[in-house]
Amino acid sequence: MQIESVDFYYLAMPEVLDIGDGSQDALLVRVGAGGYVGWGECEAAPLVSIASLVCPLSHSACKPVAASVLGQRLDRVDDIARIGQLVREQSLDLLQADHTLSGIDMALWDVLGQRFAAPVYRLLGYARAYPKTPYASQLFGDSPEETYAKGRRVAEQGYRAVKFGWGPFGRGTADLDRDHIVAARESIGADAVLLIDAGTVWQDDVERASQSLAALEQCRATWLEEPFVSGAHGAYRALAARSGRVKLAGGEGCHNYFMAEHMLDHAGLGFIQIDAGRIGGITQAKRVADAARQRGITYVNHTFTSHLALSASLQPYAGLRDHALCEYPVEPKALAVELTREHLVPDANGQVALPERPGLGLHPDLDALAKYLVEVEIQVAGRTLYRTGPLTL
Amino acid sequence: MQIESVDFYYLAMPEVLDIGDGSQDALLVRVGAGGYVGWGECEAAPLVSIASLVCPLSHSACKPVAASVLGQRLDRVDDIARIGQLVREQSLDLLQADHTLSGIDMALWDVLGQRFAAPVYRLLGYARAYPKTPYASQLFGDSPEETYAKGRRVAEQGYRAVKFGWGPFGRGTADLDRDHIVAARESIGADAVLLIDAGTVWQDDVERASQSLAALEQCRATWLEEPFVSGAHGAYRALAARSGRVKLAGGEGCHNYFMAEHMLDHAGLGFIQIDAGRIGGITQAKRVADAARQRGITYVNHTFTSHLALSASLQPYAGLRDHALCEYPVEPKALAVELTREHLVPDANGQVALPERPGLGLHPDLDALAKYLVEVEIQVAGRTLYRTGPLTL
Repeated sequence: MQIESVDFYYLAMPEVLDIGDGSQDALLVRVGAGGYVGWGECEAAPLVSIASLVCPLSHSACKPVAASVLGQRLDRVDDIARIGQLVREQSLDLLQADHTLSGIDMALWDVLGQRFAAPVYRLLGYARAYPKTPYASQLFGDSPEETYAKGRRVAEQGYRAVKFGWGPFGRGTADLDRDHIVAARESIGADAVLLIDAGTVWQDDVERASQSLAALEQCRATWLEEPFVSGAHGAYRALAARSGRVKLAGGEGCHNYFMAEHMLDHAGLGFIQIDAGRIGGITQAKRVADAARQRGITYVNHTFTSHLALSASLQPYAGLRDHALCEYPVEPKALAVELTREHLVPDANGQVALPERPGLGLHPDLDALAKYLVEVEIQVAGRTLYRTGPLTL
Repeated sequence: MQIESVDFYYLAMPEVLDIGDGSQDALLVRVGAGGYVGWGECEAAPLVSIASLVCPLSHSACKPVAASVLGQRLDRVDDIARIGQLVREQSLDLLQADHTLSGIDMALWDVLGQRFAAPVYRLLGYARAYPKTPYASQLFGDSPEETYAKGRRVAEQGYRAVKFGWGPFGRGTADLDRDHIVAARESIGADAVLLIDAGTVWQDDVERASQSLAALEQCRATWLEEPFVSGAHGAYRALAARSGRVKLAGGEGCHNYFMAEHMLDHAGLGFIQIDAGRIGGITQAKRVADAARQRGITYVNHTFTSHLALSASLQPYAGLRDHALCEYPVEPKALAVELTREHLVPDANGQVALPERPGLGLHPDLDALAKYLVEVEIQVAGRTLYRTGPLTL
């Protein structure tokens, strides 16, 4: 087969708020090859990824991403890695390219899954997909009372693992952080898995981050996520040396395999969190899962958007039985819910299983999405390089 | 002062060729504050950086870069670091932001230099700027004979250090590479500094890269640059262990301080090469220069475009006497030459000195640039987010 089309669709809620909720917009990717249509999703900043798909050539190592994808052969699994490598070479100096590739890579796997009538995880070499324990991923409340109320709500929905993140956490006093952590633990009960996400709030300030450790340990948090920005390995390592039973988690900011490998080797992590919508897609995420397994570090997806992105983010570690947690967005905006016709719903045991359908196993709900479509037009030197096309199969 | 305006101008040669020459286009940045006008330049992919300046909000950690710059106070040197930090926080999930910030950061230093009537290097804390030995930076010829001819040409111009890169190097046999290296050495004479740039051609293939070491050692190359992609630290380290007197150089792909720090700590480099147009500007480049000095690794600029970018790339290590080489593009396209009214020309000793004028000390030649201006218009949901404005002071 030959890749005949790559189309990007910018979707957004009517109003996008200045809050830490990544489900307010989406960049949906459609790839056509040999009569098949595959879908993917790039994380964040849709306009910028659209620009990187179609921008004019700057030089031989700074080409638009489309130049390395359109017209390529797509017959075997190895072709996807080859195309990704071509993107990285030909768009070496185009920083946004890894995010742009991510959604395309997912769509290529979705195409091949249909071509071979197999779910993506099988094409990745896994004999089966183990169900994961979803953790309800949500923002902290504005007050400890609100955090408590949010925790109660998801606990009552049956979640046995809950993550609280962003919002006011880490931005005020360590005492206020403690009150939020205590409220979070009390809200979900003694037996549930408690996860705390600092959202890089402390940059690389080990001392400030350390002030939260006592409350995290006392409340038996399983992990402290992103106390620091992704690159601050020294700070991560120093905090990990003091964090006792509380493990550090991080990695969502990694936009290529090597960045994740460096975190695995130097940041003292207990968990590495990879967003397939940022790291270059399923192909690169699978490399990280392999590397994590070899090092005894637990792999977890990072997903805060649609179930299409969720399916893509679960495939890379579907066959790793002991890597049992999965991030599961519980308060997505309507756009993210309506993005797919099917959904990955927790089963009677509260576990989330990947679909056994071909490819990613989920299909965009094109009728529902029409109202979210954002019209974009980019003109350069009088030529229209991009204009939103019809969102159809 | 308050930052009143940030304007981006996409400039390009009438024809942009598919060769490894980054001087074929440019993104010129103009910042206005308190009656002063400062200029900067972002490396590569102008359209994508324009999109990242003006894109709609995705969520609280994915804002357009302009949102963290416009309206900010700019009174002291520390304000520039604060604004950069704000960009990194508020555009955390916008991958392109570091490249976009780079040109803005340069322009902010240029503004403060005028405000305080001092060259940027003084504002960075250096008492003086040591002249650097420019190495003529050019592409390999298509054949060893052509490489020889190119080397002769710059040797006759008086350059005592010459770099050859990209082109056919590393893409054919190791024998062909050797012929190019030998031709390069013979062309510039026994006493000149010879530098070889593999342009990441071997990705992370240590064995293939090793095949070039004997010729490099025999021809007394000072460094082998970018045998691998920036992230492949393990490959760098393994090759460094075998490379004897030939040092490894790399780092131009680093788009934030931490990536450079990781290379300094884990890649076995002898030289770290930083492009101020990519790493987040002069502010982050200076952090890398400090870290390199502390570790006994030599800092070098990476510059393949205009003399505005060259001045910005030299400021961060201007006061480091022992870090004496500088990359100096010798075959830039007319756009890059005409971009500034003044130029950093080698003196009678063949050395390049920074101007003692305020700020970056170079001024765009607006009349000459008019013919290179590329008209861009970006519309989202019926609103014009960007339209090329008049290129004026």
